[in-house]
Amino acid sequence: MKVSGTPYRTIWPVDDAENGIGAAEIIDQTKLPHQFVTVRLETVEEAATAICDMWVRGAPLIGATAAYGMALAMRADPSDESLNAAYDLLMAARPTAVNLRWACDDLREVLTNLPAERRIAAAYRRAAEICDEDVEICSSIGDHGMPLIREAWESRGKPDQVNVLTHCNAGWLATVDWGTALAPVYKAHDAGIPVHVWVDETRPRNQGASLTAWELGQHGVPHTVIVDNVGGHLMQHGMVDLCITGTDRTTRTGDVCNKIGTYLKALAAHDNGVPFYVGLPGPTIDWTVRDGVAEIPIEERDGAEVTVMTGKTAAGEIMDITLTPDESPAANFAFDVTPRRLVTGLITERGVSAASEEGLSALYPERAR
Amino acid sequence: MKVSGTPYRTIWPVDDAENGIGAAEIIDQTKLPHQFVTVRLETVEEAATAICDMWVRGAPLIGATAAYGMALAMRADPSDESLNAAYDLLMAARPTAVNLRWACDDLREVLTNLPAERRIAAAYRRAAEICDEDVEICSSIGDHGMPLIREAWESRGKPDQVNVLTHCNAGWLATVDWGTALAPVYKAHDAGIPVHVWVDETRPRNQGASLTAWELGQHGVPHTVIVDNVGGHLMQHGMVDLCITGTDRTTRTGDVCNKIGTYLKALAAHDNGVPFYVGLPGPTIDWTVRDGVAEIPIEERDGAEVTVMTGKTAAGEIMDITLTPDESPAANFAFDVTPRRLVTGLITERGVSAASEEGLSALYPERAR
Repeated sequence: MKVSGTPYRTIWPVDDAENGIGAAEIIDQTKLPHQFVTVRLETVEEAATAICDMWVRGAPLIGATAAYGMALAMRADPSDESLNAAYDLLMAARPTAVNLRWACDDLREVLTNLPAERRIAAAYRRAAEICDEDVEICSSIGDHGMPLIREAWESRGKPDQVNVLTHCNAGWLATVDWGTALAPVYKAHDAGIPVHVWVDETRPRNQGASLTAWELGQHGVPHTVIVDNVGGHLMQHGMVDLCITGTDRTTRTGDVCNKIGTYLKALAAHDNGVPFYVGLPGPTIDWTVRDGVAEIPIEERDGAEVTVMTGKTAAGEIMDITLTPDESPAANFAFDVTPRRLVTGLITERGVSAASEEGLSALYPERAR
Repeated sequence: MKVSGTPYRTIWPVDDAENGIGAAEIIDQTKLPHQFVTVRLETVEEAATAICDMWVRGAPLIGATAAYGMALAMRADPSDESLNAAYDLLMAARPTAVNLRWACDDLREVLTNLPAERRIAAAYRRAAEICDEDVEICSSIGDHGMPLIREAWESRGKPDQVNVLTHCNAGWLATVDWGTALAPVYKAHDAGIPVHVWVDETRPRNQGASLTAWELGQHGVPHTVIVDNVGGHLMQHGMVDLCITGTDRTTRTGDVCNKIGTYLKALAAHDNGVPFYVGLPGPTIDWTVRDGVAEIPIEERDGAEVTVMTGKTAAGEIMDITLTPDESPAANFAFDVTPRRLVTGLITERGVSAASEEGLSALYPERAR
């Protein structure tokens, strides 16, 4: 998607003058929305830091960064020792990231079977493929989801604005390009549909207020930031045509684990007859889980994410401030589970499915067995 | 309620040495939760500033401050001119505050019919009565609501903790003492029931994270601050026994207009079988409105309340920071309406009523006609 009019991905290779194969460049997402800073990753150590310190975030982008990290390690030294050290270093950067493991395993398998002299080119090629595959999946989610926005707009007689509400950031910044929940929005916008997005701030980490608002603004998509409390009121008054969120993990039955607060928006959508969709790449479906509320453990994070907030001072400095009394504890549950009964449909790269085992099994018969 | 072990009200008269009738003292609530500062109001102008600049907030406390403002005006000059000027000054301090108008009208009526030499004592006496009446109403709300907490605790076999979730600040800081939603909590705590409160942060103005957390902490009530997104997850997992919120305006049919986000919590409570109560003084019932969602206009406030947040830096300085991209607009709806079908009961100073016209009419027959 675009930044100040220029198309970007969240990660891209930069050829160097000598051998045509060089660094990987990323956007330092910790600086957004206040500064747009790109960082050149020259070594596997730098790639590991980018993952560990969350300069990159979102499962697909973490995987892509790890793949380029392996390539950077091969560029420095294509030996077996270097390969294994790079694997260990990257895997330790964010131990719970499933895509990180997947990408590291994939690259190691590709490279182990090659002689050292062919590893550099193969690693860069595979890293590029991983990125392109992700872009293709997200683009397809967009293609399947865009008609839902178009239909909502047309069914209301093509008003000046069709309103989508989203929660957290499931846009291109969380993937390599397009995003998941926001891919249909970008496709609709690019097709001339007058889509406007209500952007949930998404406390405590404010991914909506910072990342989603920034990426929509940069691409030119009209949007308005709201606090997480507002969505119900908007839906009561006909100001939301459909909701689209992303998901961290979807059960084989269609329960959706996503950023904390998603469940509350799904309840409001259900109470007001607003369709509630979830955009997801098929590979993120967890075929081992049936009952999301009962079975998915919810991560509890540091209460300081609740009590301390980061932003820009009037002087332009980035600063932390504390919101609460010093003595008051805070609890920080990171995700919640939206039961499938509240989900209108799942928008995947293979089409839109009902949030049900039948629906998902029909789309992914090879996984559902 | 207590601050550092000492009982306080939110406003109290301070005798001066000369004539026994003196200033009114308040807590500057804009400094909370980071600093506890009391301010002595010596003149009607200072009382008007306290209201206008929101050093005091909450309908009952605004009314009480206005009453003392009239008394301060009489102390300076008990003439008719002074009386009328004080009335105009105070009424302009926050033109939409219903209790402000009510208190100013009340004092003017009491004082106009008296000779100037009797006005000072009468004004102070009436201001004190207004405060005492509010304390009595809130204390009664607490007495009627406390058994609901006790029953929830006892029905679960008296566990170590009974969990109440609240939204915004409807505690003693919003009234003269006790509060509305929190009065039952204080009564339960003081009676030895192990009540723990989940405190919704309450974006955008963070009244929960700042005021509710502070006042519960000062009185010694165990509590945990959560972001507004968390309540649904807690209720799905049995971690909330009952919800109690306040209300800005309740219709004669029992629809509840309250701080934005209340509706989302009521939906989650309903979806999980958690009782959802609202504490309110009977006088705040609006007998002219039947359909809250359709009829109550919702105030839209400055988007800067969403995009800019205030807190304490590591150096102890109070500072504003911006959360969003400079280009992103924000919308700021201040209230929402919770339909009566989602409200388990209304806790008033006369008892607990169903959220229905029948229920409220039975409690307030003289108003329901």
